[in-house]
Amino acid sequence: MKKLINTAESVVEDALNGMAAAHPSLRVRDRVVYRAEGPRPGKVGVVSGGGSGHEPLHAGFVGYGMLDAACPGEIFTSPVPDQIVEATQAVDGGAGVLHIVKNYTGDVLNFEMAAELVEDVEVASVLVDDDVAVQDSLYTAGRRGTGATLFVEKIAGALAEEDAPLAEVAAVAREVDERSRSFGVALTSCTTPAAGKPMFDLPETDVELGIGIHGEPGRARVPMRPARELAVLAMEAIHADLPLRDDLLVMVNGMGGTPLMELYVVYAEVAAFARGKGARVTRSLVGNYVTSLDMQGFSVSVCRLDERLTRLWDAAVETPALRWGR
Amino acid sequence: MKKLINTAESVVEDALNGMAAAHPSLRVRDRVVYRAEGPRPGKVGVVSGGGSGHEPLHAGFVGYGMLDAACPGEIFTSPVPDQIVEATQAVDGGAGVLHIVKNYTGDVLNFEMAAELVEDVEVASVLVDDDVAVQDSLYTAGRRGTGATLFVEKIAGALAEEDAPLAEVAAVAREVDERSRSFGVALTSCTTPAAGKPMFDLPETDVELGIGIHGEPGRARVPMRPARELAVLAMEAIHADLPLRDDLLVMVNGMGGTPLMELYVVYAEVAAFARGKGARVTRSLVGNYVTSLDMQGFSVSVCRLDERLTRLWDAAVETPALRWGR
Repeated sequence: MKKLINTAESVVEDALNGMAAAHPSLRVRDRVVYRAEGPRPGKVGVVSGGGSGHEPLHAGFVGYGMLDAACPGEIFTSPVPDQIVEATQAVDGGAGVLHIVKNYTGDVLNFEMAAELVEDVEVASVLVDDDVAVQDSLYTAGRRGTGATLFVEKIAGALAEEDAPLAEVAAVAREVDERSRSFGVALTSCTTPAAGKPMFDLPETDVELGIGIHGEPGRARVPMRPARELAVLAMEAIHADLPLRDDLLVMVNGMGGTPLMELYVVYAEVAAFARGKGARVTRSLVGNYVTSLDMQGFSVSVCRLDERLTRLWDAAVETPALRWGR
Repeated sequence: MKKLINTAESVVEDALNGMAAAHPSLRVRDRVVYRAEGPRPGKVGVVSGGGSGHEPLHAGFVGYGMLDAACPGEIFTSPVPDQIVEATQAVDGGAGVLHIVKNYTGDVLNFEMAAELVEDVEVASVLVDDDVAVQDSLYTAGRRGTGATLFVEKIAGALAEEDAPLAEVAAVAREVDERSRSFGVALTSCTTPAAGKPMFDLPETDVELGIGIHGEPGRARVPMRPARELAVLAMEAIHADLPLRDDLLVMVNGMGGTPLMELYVVYAEVAAFARGKGARVTRSLVGNYVTSLDMQGFSVSVCRLDERLTRLWDAAVETPALRWGR
């Protein structure tokens, strides 16, 4: 294993130092990444977090129009309640705080505990569980939270920026989760710095359909095939669960080690599939956004938009990893 | 080799179709990527191009404030003169066209030939040769053009957007090249779809210092070491060639297969090195921008800014891969 790290123990800390140095718009304190400008009175604070190794999720989405704070845990490990408590109290502008939680047992428990420990802050919580691949999984009861987390954070963040009340921000976050589905495909395993070897064996001839973002097993292991067929398998799994129609937001996401060129090859097939079902992809995103360390592969996330969600998606955002039109 | 492609022969075409589908702001015609809105009368057209496999370079930088057109060749292969002629004629708004050419023999020849073939368009050309690693190389006489190409395209594109005349746009492009240096480090080889196996052998214990973006050999092969030491080696090579001082624009760039988290680890070390030399990193970029297919590794590019270059760097840009503040 070769990785650009100093030590396996310091990798999260070192990467956060790099983020802080690269982005004056961020402030990093006690393992929480904040907007440097601090909370705005009257605005709902939006907080997310989870294990590290999925960058730019979540810290790369801290900024105007999206998150107020992100709580990174160790690699593939939930943040601790203390981090979440501190983040929640720090970003409260008096209108309460929304927790956006990916559905993994550790994350769910620690965010719940933090919500109980927080003093004098109204907290609402939304669970993201968009991955249609499997019902339960290694670290999850129910469906896993994956790519749609980005959709939830962007759209809830946009509504919070408009000074909507906590209940409304939480409701739109839930609505986005309900309207979103994801499916991932791994070409290779990922390797954590601590383990130093691949998390699972995947022969050179095979791919894993329905992979989780921590290398959790998916639905099936099948022989490698052209991008077109892999895209169709992913889209069929999504379409079977939530019929594609009307306006869609589609993300073709790389798992961390996937070149952009290949993601565009997949996107062409995904868009063609959606058209074939009579749906319109009106918004899209292609790139490495919700990753799994150095894993090669992709995931597709789809959200069924309406006019309001489209408007909130289009609203200005200014974060390290997502920015447009302030 | 597992790649998200349909066939090795169609990968460039398929990826361009994906780009066109994902970005309504782009138009793809005859292997040239244009701004959909077409040329603006009185504005210098800015055209670049080169082999594919370096995405998002160049097509991902087509848009407001940067390129008017990009000419992608086959993987690691120069675009043909016909593409460049067509792009040049199509983007001319009457004020002439700047060619931004990375210093590789094939690119230089084909852009020169195209400049001669173009009719009724004034063409200026600037060569990017920022890589300090080696003097001559596999495909290059003189230094190779790598990461600083992004700086040249951004800053020349910004000045062109202000309707500066061709001579001025060409002059600022040359100035950025002269003020910029780069150095790359490979942890792994890249694999072209056509070859289907790594371009070179790099043992699990070693890294290649001064790697080119097509896997060309660098200065030395040394045992793998912590990110801090690799960053220092890269920065020392740059500093020895162009002393770091005053305001710097720094890019820590991934080679395509490198997770963002690791790039931030490297960035922290790069920024610390610059501070140690008494320089200030006033602008930065961390991500996969000038890549080499699936290669793992990084490059650092540094440009010595002044007030005018800072202003042009900050100017609004709206492309698939780089966007801020229109």
